[in-house]
Amino acid sequence: MLIDTKIPYRYIFHQIKWDVARVILFSLLFQLLKTYVASYLPPVPVQLPTILGSFISLLLAFNMNQSYDRWWEARKVWGAIVNDSRSLVLQLRQFIDPRQMPAGEAARLLRRLGHRQIAWCYSLGQSLRGQDALAGLPQFISPEEMASVAEHRNKPLALMQQHSDDLATLTQAGALNTFQQVQLDSTLVRLVASMGQAERIKSTVFPVTYRLFIHLFIYLFLIILSLGLVEEVGLMEIPALTIVASAFFLLEKTAKFMQDPFNNKPTDTPVSAIARTIDINIRQLLHEPQVPEPRKAEEFYLM
Amino acid sequence: MLIDTKIPYRYIFHQIKWDVARVILFSLLFQLLKTYVASYLPPVPVQLPTILGSFISLLLAFNMNQSYDRWWEARKVWGAIVNDSRSLVLQLRQFIDPRQMPAGEAARLLRRLGHRQIAWCYSLGQSLRGQDALAGLPQFISPEEMASVAEHRNKPLALMQQHSDDLATLTQAGALNTFQQVQLDSTLVRLVASMGQAERIKSTVFPVTYRLFIHLFIYLFLIILSLGLVEEVGLMEIPALTIVASAFFLLEKTAKFMQDPFNNKPTDTPVSAIARTIDINIRQLLHEPQVPEPRKAEEFYLM
Amino acid sequence: MLIDTKIPYRYIFHQIKWDVARVILFSLLFQLLKTYVASYLPPVPVQLPTILGSFISLLLAFNMNQSYDRWWEARKVWGAIVNDSRSLVLQLRQFIDPRQMPAGEAARLLRRLGHRQIAWCYSLGQSLRGQDALAGLPQFISPEEMASVAEHRNKPLALMQQHSDDLATLTQAGALNTFQQVQLDSTLVRLVASMGQAERIKSTVFPVTYRLFIHLFIYLFLIILSLGLVEEVGLMEIPALTIVASAFFLLEKTAKFMQDPFNNKPTDTPVSAIARTIDINIRQLLHEPQVPEPRKAEEFYLM
Amino acid sequence: MLIDTKIPYRYIFHQIKWDVARVILFSLLFQLLKTYVASYLPPVPVQLPTILGSFISLLLAFNMNQSYDRWWEARKVWGAIVNDSRSLVLQLRQFIDPRQMPAGEAARLLRRLGHRQIAWCYSLGQSLRGQDALAGLPQFISPEEMASVAEHRNKPLALMQQHSDDLATLTQAGALNTFQQVQLDSTLVRLVASMGQAERIKSTVFPVTYRLFIHLFIYLFLIILSLGLVEEVGLMEIPALTIVASAFFLLEKTAKFMQDPFNNKPTDTPVSAIARTIDINIRQLLHEPQVPEPRKAEEFYLM
Amino acid sequence: MLIDTKIPYRYIFHQIKWDVARVILFSLLFQLLKTYVASYLPPVPVQLPTILGSFISLLLAFNMNQSYDRWWEARKVWGAIVNDSRSLVLQLRQFIDPRQMPAGEAARLLRRLGHRQIAWCYSLGQSLRGQDALAGLPQFISPEEMASVAEHRNKPLALMQQHSDDLATLTQAGALNTFQQVQLDSTLVRLVASMGQAERIKSTVFPVTYRLFIHLFIYLFLIILSLGLVEEVGLMEIPALTIVASAFFLLEKTAKFMQDPFNNKPTDTPVSAIARTIDINIRQLLHEPQVPEPRKAEEFYLM
Repeated sequence: MLIDTKIPYRYIFHQIKWDVARVILFSLLFQLLKTYVASYLPPVPVQLPTILGSFISLLLAFNMNQSYDRWWEARKVWGAIVNDSRSLVLQLRQFIDPRQMPAGEAARLLRRLGHRQIAWCYSLGQSLRGQDALAGLPQFISPEEMASVAEHRNKPLALMQQHSDDLATLTQAGALNTFQQVQLDSTLVRLVASMGQAERIKSTVFPVTYRLFIHLFIYLFLIILSLGLVEEVGLMEIPALTIVASAFFLLEKTAKFMQDPFNNKPTDTPVSAIARTIDINIRQLLHEPQVPEPRKAEEFYLM
Repeated sequence: MLIDTKIPYRYIFHQIKWDVARVILFSLLFQLLKTYVASYLPPVPVQLPTILGSFISLLLAFNMNQSYDRWWEARKVWGAIVNDSRSLVLQLRQFIDPRQMPAGEAARLLRRLGHRQIAWCYSLGQSLRGQDALAGLPQFISPEEMASVAEHRNKPLALMQQHSDDLATLTQAGALNTFQQVQLDSTLVRLVASMGQAERIKSTVFPVTYRLFIHLFIYLFLIILSLGLVEEVGLMEIPALTIVASAFFLLEKTAKFMQDPFNNKPTDTPVSAIARTIDINIRQLLHEPQVPEPRKAEEFYLM
Repeated sequence: MLIDTKIPYRYIFHQIKWDVARVILFSLLFQLLKTYVASYLPPVPVQLPTILGSFISLLLAFNMNQSYDRWWEARKVWGAIVNDSRSLVLQLRQFIDPRQMPAGEAARLLRRLGHRQIAWCYSLGQSLRGQDALAGLPQFISPEEMASVAEHRNKPLALMQQHSDDLATLTQAGALNTFQQVQLDSTLVRLVASMGQAERIKSTVFPVTYRLFIHLFIYLFLIILSLGLVEEVGLMEIPALTIVASAFFLLEKTAKFMQDPFNNKPTDTPVSAIARTIDINIRQLLHEPQVPEPRKAEEFYLM
Repeated sequence: MLIDTKIPYRYIFHQIKWDVARVILFSLLFQLLKTYVASYLPPVPVQLPTILGSFISLLLAFNMNQSYDRWWEARKVWGAIVNDSRSLVLQLRQFIDPRQMPAGEAARLLRRLGHRQIAWCYSLGQSLRGQDALAGLPQFISPEEMASVAEHRNKPLALMQQHSDDLATLTQAGALNTFQQVQLDSTLVRLVASMGQAERIKSTVFPVTYRLFIHLFIYLFLIILSLGLVEEVGLMEIPALTIVASAFFLLEKTAKFMQDPFNNKPTDTPVSAIARTIDINIRQLLHEPQVPEPRKAEEFYLM
Repeated sequence: MLIDTKIPYRYIFHQIKWDVARVILFSLLFQLLKTYVASYLPPVPVQLPTILGSFISLLLAFNMNQSYDRWWEARKVWGAIVNDSRSLVLQLRQFIDPRQMPAGEAARLLRRLGHRQIAWCYSLGQSLRGQDALAGLPQFISPEEMASVAEHRNKPLALMQQHSDDLATLTQAGALNTFQQVQLDSTLVRLVASMGQAERIKSTVFPVTYRLFIHLFIYLFLIILSLGLVEEVGLMEIPALTIVASAFFLLEKTAKFMQDPFNNKPTDTPVSAIARTIDINIRQLLHEPQVPEPRKAEEFYLM
């Protein structure tokens, strides 16, 4: 997530440099053409750039809106993960009846579930970003669990399975009654759903032809605009066209980055920072003395 | 689902070839008309193409948005199927109490339900695409079940009925208590709802007149634009009009394909690939040694 | 619901004939005016038709979108009815314990509830369309139930009350335990909600002034456009204006028809066909030998 | 809610008379200015009215859409109240076991809860409209309850509290078991939520600056348009501008009225009529012989 | 929340003064340039300001819509907090069985939970606004609870933990049975979710590049418009441009303020006033004699 301040110009410029270079190139080309073959160039009727301009503006604005919705949906999914992680620990503390288990066993299981929930959040974030889904997990789960998780293709799902097994254990020991088990299971169902929703956003490519045609239409519009400007504006055309083109390409790139919020880029949903927040919350709900610091922003963004 | 790279030009061109041919034809026609009867052609007032152009741009942009919503809804439905399939198996493993049944019976029923859930996903995907809903199912369900399903018109619904019967059996045997049965039934209710939602998207034709009028308006707009261009641009009109027309028709076709995401086309929701993912997940949750590979993309799309 | 093919021209033409006639009339009138009093007509500034044209285009496009949402919501409500009807029967089969009742009694009650659910779907569809809500019901429910339903103003609600009474009977007989009763009641609550949602769409008039002003603005726009065209285009104005006007009025009518999807028109949500699908599904879930055929489309639409 | 027919012109005209008067005034003023100081008036460049016109058109169209969503949300909330009121009575009839209470006591409590639910609907509608929330209630609830409700600031909430107390009474008497109590409580939770949602729409002012700026921009646009027209159109400017202005102001007013659907105006959500429908439904579910008539529309609207 | 009336001009002017100053500055600059180097200035083609104007209008209108959605979502979250706070107290009163506890203990616990719920609402509102989350809490919770809460980083979450502990106490004492506990826990889950949703809106910066580019495009548009006006309008350009610029900047600022509804500004969601409403409701549900007054608006806004 980009932070409100201090976005360096080079970051912004970096995104559109090739497209802008191409635009400069072809406006130069049209200048040359004009010098040598002006009389052969067809006149561009005045309506064409206006019609195409309003068409591409509309497409871009709608596309921006769809990208925004997708970005906001990704953030909502991770918001739901925060909420359900907190609720899970609150519910476990409230429901587990320690009198039904050997001394200390209930507390040990509560701690195990809480830590595994932290591990799940980190692991899900890393796997969405295509990073190692197991990195950093050994501090939260036991070596046996680690080994079992490693055998699964979908690591966060394996952690959920261990949660589910623990609930069965607690119920069979009598520390949870069946209603409480089912209520906790409902929380797991919601967590599994959030996981699947994040995976859906990650794995569903934004409609490719739609994205591609918008890109092509911007070029089409700029070429027709350029042909129209050639006659009237002369050499001043090149900076004018470059600025207008930059405006359109910047918007297009912003839309594109918002469409893919789990790409390990500065515009990502800040899943690491959110997982850290959950880490802090759960440790405090478990009354642990040591709590990590919230993740700091790096330069101009927060991962 | 189209994959991000390598969409062949012939695929794109194939979609709009007839419409573009028609546009070339009538712009040729207007050129001829102009040569012979220029003086009789009425002047097209400058506002008409602009007004119609912004109207058709708006309609197309909104239509694109509605198609996108429908496409995204279809993907969400299948995302929910992923989540509930995983939850179903997690819940069954957690809830079933093997001590209440003959040795091995609980494990056998768990495996039967898990495999039938895989079968259900494949069957639903195939029936939505108008393919044989029973193809490939014998590896997951027994011949008796197969025979019973074959008698139903709606095959996936018949599989759900067998799920439901198994829950009754498990409850009567005491391996599930009623509260757990009801929680599992809630998962079945969600799966039945997702099935119905996918069928709804499949069976509900996008408003025909709306779709038709957009198509006609694009032609109307192009004809009026063509009449306007005739006077000013001359022979250069034909490529200009062809390019503009292609832009509009490409968008319209993209919208149309997104409206029908279960049509056995490259732009489909990738239901086979999603069903395979569920297949892998469920087998790993059941600790089966053999797990299939994720489905690969074919050339430039993933089914 | 209109079917994808074969919409006859007369059907489309029929919708807008009066509006188009009016447009032809006043463009003729302006021609006459022009011939006699041209010098007294004020010049229409070039911006006015453009501004009004883009305003009315926007209003129509948004209106189309709102109508589409309403139409899609109506379809979703009936999709939910499909899902919950199927779930209701699956649940009843799963939950009812025949050992707690006299022989055959449980099967009889199951069949009664299933048939009443079919009756409810037909009855709701007919009452939404303003038809006789009781037509065709005697083949599904007993004469006593029929008599009791006839006394209620809201027939589908009366059928739900009988469902509810049967659940109480089954529970008191011990064939359902309380958890199962409550789970079944949740399904009834969803069905009651769907019924209310369909009634809401039926009874809530789309904001009248909004609809009216859009209609008036189209005329206002056409008159101003007509005044503008008079000077430039001459007699060719009449067909030009007629075509443009038809485009706008067709869109407006399409929007209007989508706003009211329970009006017994070809553009309706196909509630009869959906009820038939439920009929087939429930009979097959009850293992009945005789099952009706799916409803066929009539000419170019499906009711 | 305005009814589909017969909206009197005076009602429509009444809404915009002051704004239109102001527009006529300043177009007159510009005519005078033109006569005396034409040479000093700056020429208005042709793009300005077009740009501002499309900007204000967009704002108004989006604003209309937001207002429509708010209006539809209000209607949905009241639709949910209909559904949950019906479900509440169906559930009470189904769940209450009369054998656990003195003869007639269960029937008396059922009737009390049903009548109080009717009272709640009327009371909520009246309090949303700023009317006396207690008017007409004595025919539904006892004098003691009436006195208790009168002490609360939020009358409908007090009625819900009495519902809640009755559920406790029924449970303690054994006429409801705990699971049924919880299911009924879920219905109360939804009713409390609907009440809060209606209050939210009522108490949340539509963003004031947004509404205000739209109003000012319409004036700004009209002034600039007027300046532009002065040169070309002459005296005919006044009716032209008046008509265009009326179009914009009518839309703005329509949007404004839809934003506040509980204002005791003809454009309100018809809460009295909906409460009457619930009244009829509940009485028939309780098998009462006397049932009121549905509320009739008054002249051109239904409250 | 701004109140419908009496927004002082200085408040509005204050928001855009720097942007307007910059616009005046550069239109002055262009006037000077024109006087000295008019012949070197390139002509601005007539289409450019129109195209850019309709592009920036679209972006602003969509942005306004997204901001409005975010603002409305924030208000909905706090509406849900109102509803669930009321339901929580209604449920506690209905469920707690005083006969299972020492005399007066149930009433004491009910009062403690009710007051803590009030404290939670105030605390959440204050922490969202970056104020002291503990201010004013001692009048609602005991010193021991205060001390325990102070140790947590997330104060409202700590209060929820205490709620959760109390539910466990009540259940262990037998004053709640497990169904009732689970139903109350569901209410806590919803409150935790609402808290997380408000935190999500607070902590998620609106996409920075999107916001930034809109700001830059307004300037780009104004500069190009200014260049276009220079030739035609002369000195009158400065007020004209200033007014148009103010319109765009006012809208942009309005959108920006709606994006961040928990910023301790007059445009905030009125969380203090909502918390006060909950305070009043809960005290009356607990039959307390002393109830505070609703919060009054300050000058032109309500916090």
